[in-house]
Amino acid sequence: MRWEDLGDQNCSVARSLAVFGDRWTLMVLRNCFLGVKRFDDFLRDLDLSRTILTDRLNKLVEHGVLEKIPYQVKPTRHDYRLTQKGRDLHPIIMAIVQWGDQYYAIDGEPPIIRTHTRCGKDFQSVTVCSECGEPILAHEVTVRSNPKVRKVIA
Amino acid sequence: MRWEDLGDQNCSVARSLAVFGDRWTLMVLRNCFLGVKRFDDFLRDLDLSRTILTDRLNKLVEHGVLEKIPYQVKPTRHDYRLTQKGRDLHPIIMAIVQWGDQYYAIDGEPPIIRTHTRCGKDFQSVTVCSECGEPILAHEVTVRSNPKVRKVIA
Repeated sequence: MRWEDLGDQNCSVARSLAVFGDRWTLMVLRNCFLGVKRFDDFLRDLDLSRTILTDRLNKLVEHGVLEKIPYQVKPTRHDYRLTQKGRDLHPIIMAIVQWGDQYYAIDGEPPIIRTHTRCGKDFQSVTVCSECGEPILAHEVTVRSNPKVRKVIA
Repeated sequence: MRWEDLGDQNCSVARSLAVFGDRWTLMVLRNCFLGVKRFDDFLRDLDLSRTILTDRLNKLVEHGVLEKIPYQVKPTRHDYRLTQKGRDLHPIIMAIVQWGDQYYAIDGEPPIIRTHTRCGKDFQSVTVCSECGEPILAHEVTVRSNPKVRKVIA
């Protein structure tokens, strides 16, 4: 099925990218998953302007991806913490890391090693099918419009 | 471990986002995975300017994510096809789709249904650990610098 048959307003990718589809936002999210929570720490780590950082953090709060938790009064200071909706972005960040490690590693070595505490081993992320558990390859996927959603739009 | 200890120049996310980290590029890639190959088809489907589309396609060719394959001479016309490096971006697009379906579906229905031709079932993508095969949760991941890469930088 071709894109023109699917409907732009109704695309999960388009709608997701409206939330996080710019480089700085994805870098902010990457930092969130590395444990960064405070404005000044994002600012120092990312080397971007206060204006851009404020805009990106506010947008993520507005979309329910981050929440502001006060940790100090007079003056008020906030932590920015991932909500469940934010934590659910983890597979996207993992997939980006995986690709970057594969194609941009220096001498074949990833810059960061990740350990899965559940099994205790250093790991890479693998994207698998919810039904058969096998890795998903692009040429083994076919798509069709959801007839129920067509009805909603009509 | 905190971001400032890891080194910006050495981050797989930062380096990956230099290739595809803007909304239009990700939309172009989404279309590639839906089978779109020709300039005019991207143009019509995405409703963006010829200048932006040309820029994004050229950048993806330059980074080895797409390749130009001539399908006509006088005048020369090209298909834009995903290379292996490009096809390896599929898990990222899948993860974005998954999140969008989860949080922006209309009445809980995803706009597009995907079938895994290997097992024949409609599926969702799941990100699992390469070692134990269990789904990866953000709070079950710890990170450390790769000592071999530290040596390369030093």
